[in-house]
Amino acid sequence: MEITGLRDIFLSKEEFFDTEVTVSGWVRSNRDSKNFGFLTISDGTFFTPLQVVYHDNMENFNEIAKLGVGAAVIVTGRLLATPDAKQDFELQATVVSVEGDTLPDYPLQKKRHSLEYLRTIPHLRPRTNTFQAVFRIRSQIAFAIHSFFQERGFVYVHTPIITASDAEGAGEMFQVTTLPLENIPMHEGCPDYKEDFFGKKTSLTVSGQLNGETFAQAFRDIYTFGPTFRAENSNTQRHAAEFWMIEPEMAFADLEDVMFIAEDMLKYIIQYVLINAPEELEFLNQFVDKELLARLQNIVKSDFARVSYTEAVELLSKENDRFDYKVEWGCDLQTEHERYLTEEVFKRPVFVTDYPKDIKAFYMKLNEDGKTVAAVDCLVPGIGEIIGGSQREDDLEKLTKRMEEMKMNLEEYQFYLDLRKYGSTRHGGFGLGFERAVMYITGMSNIRDVLPFPRTVGNCEL
Amino acid sequence: MEITGLRDIFLSKEEFFDTEVTVSGWVRSNRDSKNFGFLTISDGTFFTPLQVVYHDNMENFNEIAKLGVGAAVIVTGRLLATPDAKQDFELQATVVSVEGDTLPDYPLQKKRHSLEYLRTIPHLRPRTNTFQAVFRIRSQIAFAIHSFFQERGFVYVHTPIITASDAEGAGEMFQVTTLPLENIPMHEGCPDYKEDFFGKKTSLTVSGQLNGETFAQAFRDIYTFGPTFRAENSNTQRHAAEFWMIEPEMAFADLEDVMFIAEDMLKYIIQYVLINAPEELEFLNQFVDKELLARLQNIVKSDFARVSYTEAVELLSKENDRFDYKVEWGCDLQTEHERYLTEEVFKRPVFVTDYPKDIKAFYMKLNEDGKTVAAVDCLVPGIGEIIGGSQREDDLEKLTKRMEEMKMNLEEYQFYLDLRKYGSTRHGGFGLGFERAVMYITGMSNIRDVLPFPRTVGNCEL
Repeated sequence: MEITGLRDIFLSKEEFFDTEVTVSGWVRSNRDSKNFGFLTISDGTFFTPLQVVYHDNMENFNEIAKLGVGAAVIVTGRLLATPDAKQDFELQATVVSVEGDTLPDYPLQKKRHSLEYLRTIPHLRPRTNTFQAVFRIRSQIAFAIHSFFQERGFVYVHTPIITASDAEGAGEMFQVTTLPLENIPMHEGCPDYKEDFFGKKTSLTVSGQLNGETFAQAFRDIYTFGPTFRAENSNTQRHAAEFWMIEPEMAFADLEDVMFIAEDMLKYIIQYVLINAPEELEFLNQFVDKELLARLQNIVKSDFARVSYTEAVELLSKENDRFDYKVEWGCDLQTEHERYLTEEVFKRPVFVTDYPKDIKAFYMKLNEDGKTVAAVDCLVPGIGEIIGGSQREDDLEKLTKRMEEMKMNLEEYQFYLDLRKYGSTRHGGFGLGFERAVMYITGMSNIRDVLPFPRTVGNCEL
Repeated sequence: MEITGLRDIFLSKEEFFDTEVTVSGWVRSNRDSKNFGFLTISDGTFFTPLQVVYHDNMENFNEIAKLGVGAAVIVTGRLLATPDAKQDFELQATVVSVEGDTLPDYPLQKKRHSLEYLRTIPHLRPRTNTFQAVFRIRSQIAFAIHSFFQERGFVYVHTPIITASDAEGAGEMFQVTTLPLENIPMHEGCPDYKEDFFGKKTSLTVSGQLNGETFAQAFRDIYTFGPTFRAENSNTQRHAAEFWMIEPEMAFADLEDVMFIAEDMLKYIIQYVLINAPEELEFLNQFVDKELLARLQNIVKSDFARVSYTEAVELLSKENDRFDYKVEWGCDLQTEHERYLTEEVFKRPVFVTDYPKDIKAFYMKLNEDGKTVAAVDCLVPGIGEIIGGSQREDDLEKLTKRMEEMKMNLEEYQFYLDLRKYGSTRHGGFGLGFERAVMYITGMSNIRDVLPFPRTVGNCEL
């Protein structure tokens, strides 16, 4: 049986007018009169549901009339233009066959549910308008990111999830083990990792960057797109224990190139969603964030602002009265500061560059002033930091010195130092938190509502 | 400084002839004569390296002449067609600036290294011809998979990596924990998981399918593409502890639809690589597998064969003499059987369908015979099973009965049963092992050579 997706019908409706089609979907509403009725059905391929008209000349009219919200049907009929009605067209059904009925306790009856309630039913919430919009846009953003980098010749690299290094000490890590927790084999007072699967202590990755750099020194332009983890006991709207990151890395590139590609990428993915999910964005603009569309359209057109960390601190410290954390040179910027800069001062995305070396990672390139490094954060309205990047230290001597200052184990990073020994190049890259990008583009304010199955402290459902 | 990628030059060479360009790259070879020399450089964007000619009228001629393999350079010059030479064109350099020199102990001198040796330097092996080919093709296959599904309206879903369920009991799992292994808090003789990060015992996912099904019942067509894990102590050429899987799932679809999309997808990604990586495939065909190109071209053109498990067992049991494991109805097929079917009997990819229910997972749809399920494996020459799929049991009663027979904890699968209560649909999907696909398309025979940083028992480097 040939089933046509509603997306095909809605996007090429003229081709289908006055022809017979078979569609499938789940009932969103059902209104029956004495001798006819209306079903609206959604098959998940298009945001807007289809109106189906059924009549009492169908032998299962009574069965259809009783169908509840959520039931699955397959409908054959003729698509008719309805220029005078609210919707452009409707399907005059000849056959409505019930694929799977539903039960009266179906939790998603036709009314609005709170996001909090919907989080308790992660297996059903994708059926609601809000999550139809959010998760289709999430998928589109992911594909736009791949398209953006592939069109530019970047090679996609799967950096490892299980790792024996702590990368950059970027955060608390989850341990991965096959040792029996009820009876850990010990050796001289420590767990005997020789008995563990990999013969050493292993964890879930916090960043693929260092691995990514090894590939950039071979393919010039690469990107990663994979899950990363933080075992941080923080229960905020913006943090999850498991989230996805995109980390491009470019050889023969400096901080200027990093900013160029970051701005270009953000505009590309927003443009992609504006073109491919107009119905979803319209819905989110109406029910979630009234300024969403205006903000997205504005970003595509405007150049991102630029300010050095030192200049930003000057701007912010004048306004210290309004901040919980007072700003002075050398401190890390908090979300309140970031949002003030991007929302109040610049009113658009802004790159903040050249941070004090002491608040940034060991691998960032030391500037000539000896105090700051060639780091860049991209701040966007409503979110704060969405991208963090840098030019990397490519000088073997300076890098070794910095790692020694920070008391790092050079032995463990021999592979990373090798990149500076054999054909070192100026290079840089950034990390984009994927969920932050999805929040930004959908207007959703809680990371739990842009992750299909969110993992946060105390929560690991399904 | 505007640096042009070698890919742009090789793919649009006429546009660059007789113009000045600046390129970058790493030295592959350096031959100098008295008053001139040749560098071949590769920038990682294109498989074929570029020949650069330099002369003693350049002030750093001596420095250039001494450059070793692996050094990084930036070269400005004029691109000249050389119709009488081996290569179509060369770059007559005016400036060669040394970006980063290399050391005499650079492990990748200009000679062939064994794959075993290269596995010991995973941070450098991407610079070799073999791994330039393999990892660019890996990236292209990944993108082709996304393109295939997105063009068909499938929604990409990130199913969770950390999970509290054991999915289908598909294999040994890695445990994920923040409990201190040197001092596990105990409660009544068991680890006290209330103290663990998620408040319960958690592991790394072995499959995203069950989660994927929840989204298919909302979006109709979805796919996952993410890492999966097996803590199996098996040291074979085809198994890794961490690998990537693609798991599409379609509502309103039967086993026929599953096979159609699987065949279509495999042909699409092979066609994509044939078009986009001809130089890489040519190289692999010459040095890795002499039948690679013929095999790939053949698959794109041929219809996949189909045989039921019962028919396959009849064919195989006649040849039991040649097998280590003898075949009889009810047994699982081993790689030797799978390869015999696809390589000797059908000489092309083959779908084997309708396996005995007792050797397949609980969620597969029971056929009318009561003995077999609507399962399908796709076998390909040189590999054996590359895809495993099925139509899913969509009948609440039958599914519950089967789960009870298998003594599963129904409570834990309530979300999965809900999908059969509220608008159940015929549906199905499959899993493609991504590395198996990469092995198949590159001709590489060891999974360690298609994973950027392979994780196998006892091995977790970088």
